[in-house]
Order: sequence, then C-alpha cells, then structure tokens
Amino acid sequence: MKTLILTIHDIIKIVKHSSLNSIMDEMIDRLYDGLCKYDDEALVIPARHGFAYETPNTGLLEWMPILKRGEKATFKMVGYHPTNPTHRKLPTIISNLSTYDTSNGHLLAVTDATFLTAVRTGAASAVASRIAGHPDSKTVGIIGCGAQAVTQLHALSRVFDIGNVLIYDIDPVYSQNFLRRTAFIGLDVSISPLQDLVAQSDIISSATSVAKGEGPVFQDSTVKPWLHINAVGSDFPGKIELPKSLLRRSFVFPDFLEQAVVEGECQQLEEDEIGPSLAHIVKHQHQYGNLKDQISVFDSTGWALEDQIAMELLIERAELLGLGTRVQLETRSDDPKNPYAFLDSSKPTSKTKGDDDILKQLLLN
Amino acid sequence: MKTLILTIHDIIKIVKHSSLNSIMDEMIDRLYDGLCKYDDEALVIPARHGFAYETPNTGLLEWMPILKRGEKATFKMVGYHPTNPTHRKLPTIISNLSTYDTSNGHLLAVTDATFLTAVRTGAASAVASRIAGHPDSKTVGIIGCGAQAVTQLHALSRVFDIGNVLIYDIDPVYSQNFLRRTAFIGLDVSISPLQDLVAQSDIISSATSVAKGEGPVFQDSTVKPWLHINAVGSDFPGKIELPKSLLRRSFVFPDFLEQAVVEGECQQLEEDEIGPSLAHIVKHQHQYGNLKDQISVFDSTGWALEDQIAMELLIERAELLGLGTRVQLETRSDDPKNPYAFLDSSKPTSKTKGDDDILKQLLLN
Repeated sequence: MKTLILTIHDIIKIVKHSSLNSIMDEMIDRLYDGLCKYDDEALVIPARHGFAYETPNTGLLEWMPILKRGEKATFKMVGYHPTNPTHRKLPTIISNLSTYDTSNGHLLAVTDATFLTAVRTGAASAVASRIAGHPDSKTVGIIGCGAQAVTQLHALSRVFDIGNVLIYDIDPVYSQNFLRRTAFIGLDVSISPLQDLVAQSDIISSATSVAKGEGPVFQDSTVKPWLHINAVGSDFPGKIELPKSLLRRSFVFPDFLEQAVVEGECQQLEEDEIGPSLAHIVKHQHQYGNLKDQISVFDSTGWALEDQIAMELLIERAELLGLGTRVQLETRSDDPKNPYAFLDSSKPTSKTKGDDDILKQLLLN
Repeated sequence: MKTLILTIHDIIKIVKHSSLNSIMDEMIDRLYDGLCKYDDEALVIPARHGFAYETPNTGLLEWMPILKRGEKATFKMVGYHPTNPTHRKLPTIISNLSTYDTSNGHLLAVTDATFLTAVRTGAASAVASRIAGHPDSKTVGIIGCGAQAVTQLHALSRVFDIGNVLIYDIDPVYSQNFLRRTAFIGLDVSISPLQDLVAQSDIISSATSVAKGEGPVFQDSTVKPWLHINAVGSDFPGKIELPKSLLRRSFVFPDFLEQAVVEGECQQLEEDEIGPSLAHIVKHQHQYGNLKDQISVFDSTGWALEDQIAMELLIERAELLGLGTRVQLETRSDDPKNPYAFLDSSKPTSKTKGDDDILKQLLLN
C-alpha cells in the first residue's frame, strides 16, 4: 500500500506530454461537469482554517479539506506569504494537495498544488464567465498582473473569442512583463489606464495584492451593462478590490458563501444582496439565462471542490503516463496490533521489490 | 528547496541504528522537557477537527495542527478505522506528519506517523505516571491489549522498576499474543481477571476499543490508594473507559482540556472536577508533590505538541544518519509571477542535480 508522490518534475512531464491548453481545457470541462453534478449530501466541505502570523513575516498557512463520502478525502495546504517574490524569489502561494482513501485512512497521493491552484482558479473564472458573461465578449480587462492573472487570461482565452486585452498593475514592471508571460496565449495585450480598462471591458478579472483596508482598487464609474467581473484577489478578512456601489448594482455569486462573507467581496454586502453559489447557478442555469445581460460578479475565494477535481485530473494523467514515485511511506505490518512489527518484517539491507520500483521510476525521470 | 520524505524504510533504519529503547527514552525526555518549557504564547494548538463517516465503513480522519510561532507549523493527519485489523490486516491508526517553514510556506518534511503516534502516546503516559504515579510502583495493569498497549508498557518500563504486569483483553487472542509482542521488554507478564488487575495494580494503562455508550470497561471497586491510571482509549464523543465514581474520587488531569471534555474521560465530569493539564502540572510539579500518594487519572486524548516533538526527534535522527529522500515537490521558478515558468526553467530529459540526489539517496537505501 504505497503513496504516490508527484513532484514538480512529474508535473512538467504531464504538461509537456500534452499541452497547457489541454490541461486548462480539461480542468474547465471537469469543473463544469463537477458543478453540474454537485450534490451537497455527497460532499462535505468545511470552511478553511489556518494560522495567520506576523513573525518572521506576514503569512498565512491554511488547510482546505473536502470529503467525498464513501470514497476519499482531499486536503490542500496553502501558504500565502506576500513577501516571497521580493525577498525569496518564491511564489506568494506555495501549496500541496494530498488524498486519502476513507475506507482505511491510507494516504493515496501527495503533489505540488501551486501550479494546480493557479490552473483551477483560472478555470473557475472561465466557468463563471461562460455562465454569467456576455457570449460575444471581446475585451478582457486584467487588474493586477501577478501569477493568478496569467491563468485568468489563459482560462478566459479558452472559452471566449477574445479580441483585445487591457491590463493594469500598480507596479509598471509587472504590467510590462505580463506581455512576455502571456505571449504564449497569442492575444493582443495592451497596458491601459485603469479607468479606461474598467469602462471598456466585457469581462474583468481582478487579482491584486491590495492591502487590508486599502481597497477598492478602482473607482465606480460607467461600465458595460453586461460586464462580468471575476473577483479573485479578495481572500482575506478586510481585503476587498471592488467598489461597494458597483457590487450593489451587480448580481454577485460566490464560490463558497461561508468563506466569501468572511474573506471575499461579499464582506461588503448584506446577506440579501448576495446571489446563490456558482454551483447552484451552473446546476440551474436555465433559470439564470438573463445573467449574461446584466452586471455580474463572481466572488472567487477558492473552493476545495476545485482542488479535488484538479488533483483527480493530475493523478489520472500521471497514471496514464506511468509517472510519479510510489513510496512505502506508512507502516506496513503483518501484525496490526504490534506497532513495532514493521521492524521485524522488513529486511532493509537487501533491496525489496518496493525499492526497485522506486529506483525504476526515478531512472525513468 | 526540497521536501524531505521519510518512508517507513528510513524509520526502520533510524530505529535499528540505535534501539527502540533509545527512541522511547529520548521521546520521554524531550516531551518532559517540552512540557517544562511549555509556553502557550509561543504555541498555537487548535482542537483537532475531522471527518467522521459510516461509509464504506466506520471511520474518522482527523487533522491536528500546531504552530510554533516564528518557526514552523506541524500537521498530523490521523485515520482511525477500527475494522482495519480484522478486514484489511492494517493498523487501526494510520497517520502521517508534515512540517512547514512559516517564513515562506515551504513543506519541509513528510513522514509516517503511525509508529510515532504509538511512541509518543506511550511517552506521554510515562511522563504523566512519573509525575502522578507512586515512585515505588511495581505492578502495572494493562487493560486492552491492542497496538497502543505495547508502547504503554514499553514506555512505563523505561521509567519504573516494574515487578509484574497484569493484562486483560476482552478477546483472549489478543491478551495471549500480547505476551509475544512485549517479550522484548523482558518483564513478567500474566493474563489476569479484570477486577484482580484493577485491585492489584499500582499503575494502569487502559486503551480499549470499547464502543460508544458501552463503557466503562470495568466496575469501580477498591483500588490502591496511590493508583495512577493512564486513560488512553477514550478519544471519541460517547466513548469512555473508566467508571465515573472512580474518576470522581481521583485527581483527573487531561493532556488538552478542550479535547478531553469532548472525547476523553473528562466527558463524564463537571468542569470543577477536572484538574489542570499535564503541561501545567509538569511546569509546577513542586506544587503537586502529594499527587503521587493519591488516586490520579491522566486523560490522554492525544496532543499536537507530542507529535511535533516526535517529528523533531525523527527528523534530527534522520539528518544525523543522512537518511530520507529529498524531492522537489513544489514549484521551483525563476519568475514567481509566472505560474507556468517552471515548465521552461527545467530540462526534464537530462538528469538534474536534484534527480541525482534522489538516486543517490535511494541507492543507499
């Protein structure tokens, strides 16, 4: 009973074997499908919890569990350390995912989730935009040109025929090099004054690092009557990106209400100003046909179902390609009543079949 | 920035390099030391949470986080699946531990924790018994002869000069083969009628699988006036092992009050019937000198500090011996603002230094 370890090298091979487009397309399709079938009896998704701290620097370490009844549980651990890029050349978000077999408690697999988090967050915006954005949307606005912005644009490019992209970042270095980072998408991207971007976009994704209490990041003004906004950046109590007056005249739907009212744009709203969840709207989309013609906001705080689906996708692809390393992480014993039995049942001086498997996997890397 | 994976093979080598006695002694010493220095400002220990389910069979998957401020966070995942031994030849408890650097969110290490959980639970009882048990204790009683019982007896044998051991299990198969499982300790162990065991013991450890609502596991009767009990088995709402009347005339001290009142023997008591925590008593032991001469109960539900200390011990030993495999689990990137940058910065077709390290580690295994 081994545990599959998928390292970043495995993920590179998985992506290179097909393409980023194919990963993103499959993530969007699977998420849409998962939302269509969403059953809150079959899934248990507690709100995330975490440790927030100020030493040695501002940071947050959160855990996001999800139980698929009768089958498995998936856990994402997410570190959010905003000084990582400037102080350590590391991503702000560092994350991993693990999955457990709930028939016996066995750890099935562990993988990096920094890449998957960016992909699934993009995919969630693509699904929301397809449901609530105007189908003829041509102009996409990107507010905040960090890591999440890359997958926002990538995901949107897979479901809309985008004509031009307007981008804005408070730091011109980031808006400038966003052109290079998103060149692979092949779109016409231009740096824009913020209020022009807001006025001209059919769809906006905002994902900034605005500090607590310093939002909104733009002023309310005239917007297209069918504007759809993916509000991605607000994920911390006190952190908001959108003007309250704009939220109030929009149809606002969260990924996960309990979380959105604590950390999302929904912090700014009363309960009766908030629409149903993305899952509800996708499941009952025939009732929400007119959403495409009104101003809408998807309040995306990050939802464990997205992570579970992303991990399933990755594991299935790894298994198809025979990738990953299977290690005997947990105690294996012929006598479950003896916590020391594993010491006798193994001969660590000669290589076991298990070690050979590992060796073979790594030689293949 | 790699992640250290300690498999069960590494743990075998760590134990074989020294001995089970040396691991247990060090765990007892470190835990005692950790409790002496315990500072609730420096540590954040939330009560554990989990998923409890009845399909595909009764089970529980819990997470136990602990933050050591300014340094690291440690998470234990514990699966509790009581049908594992009979249906799957697996331990009831399957568990792993992981540790994060809280300066940046990096996953430092992952290891099996089934072995460590048994060791640290034994060590906690040894520390509690040294503080509250009579120093001349000769007769140890073991109620419930499962996996936890092995490390209970092992740990107690390291801090008391035990003359004889009385054991009882509702299933005679387990009491019978407990003799074999604990032969390595070299004590005089005999199967005893339950009430004789209760009457004659100086120290008792109880760790049964009694079902919810079916406790207590023995009747209250005359016990030695200095009896100390380590109540280990009660770890679920509704599950209790000790008679309430015995608890009421005992000095009862929990490992973690918040948890003990929900899952431990403390469920049976009012708040004013519960003494301070083990950590408080160890820190202020000069005030509790008379504890050794009265009936006392350590309500051990399992505490994340014990796990953090156990993992530190294991990692330090692994590092001393150069054991474990360091893998590049997380995204490594020269451009933290580009979630896809890792795809360009790596050349997976030729072996990188990272792969060589892994290979070397595994060839050494």
